[in-house]
Amino acid sequence: MFSSILGLVAIWYLYRWYKESKRISNKGDKYVYITGCDSGFGNNLAKHLDKLGFRVIAGCYTERGELELKELSSERLTTISLDVTKSESVKKVAASIKSLVGEKGLWAVVNNAGVATPSGPTEWLTIEDYKSMLAVNLNGVIDVTLSVLPLIKMARGRVVNVASVFGRLSPFGGPYCVSKYGVESFNDSLRLNMAPFGVKVLCIEPGFFKTSVTDTVMLKNNLKSLWDRLSQDMKDEYGEAYLETIAAFSSET
Amino acid sequence: MFSSILGLVAIWYLYRWYKESKRISNKGDKYVYITGCDSGFGNNLAKHLDKLGFRVIAGCYTERGELELKELSSERLTTISLDVTKSESVKKVAASIKSLVGEKGLWAVVNNAGVATPSGPTEWLTIEDYKSMLAVNLNGVIDVTLSVLPLIKMARGRVVNVASVFGRLSPFGGPYCVSKYGVESFNDSLRLNMAPFGVKVLCIEPGFFKTSVTDTVMLKNNLKSLWDRLSQDMKDEYGEAYLETIAAFSSET
Repeated sequence: MFSSILGLVAIWYLYRWYKESKRISNKGDKYVYITGCDSGFGNNLAKHLDKLGFRVIAGCYTERGELELKELSSERLTTISLDVTKSESVKKVAASIKSLVGEKGLWAVVNNAGVATPSGPTEWLTIEDYKSMLAVNLNGVIDVTLSVLPLIKMARGRVVNVASVFGRLSPFGGPYCVSKYGVESFNDSLRLNMAPFGVKVLCIEPGFFKTSVTDTVMLKNNLKSLWDRLSQDMKDEYGEAYLETIAAFSSET
Repeated sequence: MFSSILGLVAIWYLYRWYKESKRISNKGDKYVYITGCDSGFGNNLAKHLDKLGFRVIAGCYTERGELELKELSSERLTTISLDVTKSESVKKVAASIKSLVGEKGLWAVVNNAGVATPSGPTEWLTIEDYKSMLAVNLNGVIDVTLSVLPLIKMARGRVVNVASVFGRLSPFGGPYCVSKYGVESFNDSLRLNMAPFGVKVLCIEPGFFKTSVTDTVMLKNNLKSLWDRLSQDMKDEYGEAYLETIAAFSSET
């Protein structure tokens, strides 16, 4: 009895070991396109996959981001200037990638680019605040994906969308949760649409990690600047104490 | 024993009767702003609330919509030209409503305006297709809400957002589900933000009703026009039979 349980446990661990072992062959043939590589997850992932031997195409918003990443990575890694809110930029990058990957296609695209501000109580924000974030976090994800989908299909590759735990919960105002809910939906319908082509579609839902998205100084400054532009009536309605409370809350979480 | 059960049942029915009875007083003092009143839910709701005695402000996209609605309603109802995708139009309407409602504020806003096309497999669509629908179904909802929120607060009123069952499930490609997921998130965060002010925020999630959103002829034409602009390679990949199947599916559901 005891030995048969031990046997089952051993089989379980063998299965786990096999399931979690890294079995991707010919990494040097595999192109991975990552957006938002200036900092945070995108930057870390670019360096990590470069070290593992993948061919990383790192979309950066700033020239500085490109230069810094080039210094810290092998010559396999290509940086490319990308603004996901501009369709011309997205198209131009897709054309470069097409000529880079050739017949092999694109093994993966990681939609990582995203912003966390402006964020605050709904009525402190304008429609322009909403539009500016949705342009990056939602429309940017869709545009980048559509721009390289034929290359992904060619490689029977995968699409990885970085959503958020706030793609499932909306505990605060502003466009962040709205944009991430949209990514969840886009991810799910694309997953169903791409399954017959052998293309995988995956959603990552990070909680709180130390990236610029959770940079407490930036989040506090964002709240302060939203507060400063409120009318006096609105300030009186909420009160200074409210601002201090939500600023403290955002720096604790 | 039997009589005490009977008593409980009677109390239950009394409670239900009370809960569902209509107890809104002074309807003639209550202003309700509804978007998308040219047809469908918006049009029906405008006529229904007008009959009940509310003061309806009906946003219409077309002049014809305004004229038809005026003919079928009392003089309490006001029609107003509204394009929810244009911030100037939304602001202009909000200014008119402000002068109309005066000190009373706005009792309710119903974000009903929405479109159902273009809709189809994700890779048949362009980023422009996504943007055009998100502009109405998502940004339009947010813009209209923000534009009248001070008037809603004044009346301790309510915001009613018409999302969809597809705000919770994404079984097909295209921007429809994406836009409705966004509305769900906006609704939820606004609900939390407005609770302290006595403002209710409610989400309606219709399934399949006979409105233009489920107009099978329109949905079929939409699919046909998306198909016609596909490259020959893509047409070969999917095959005519696929088009016929999804067109048949959309006309059955």
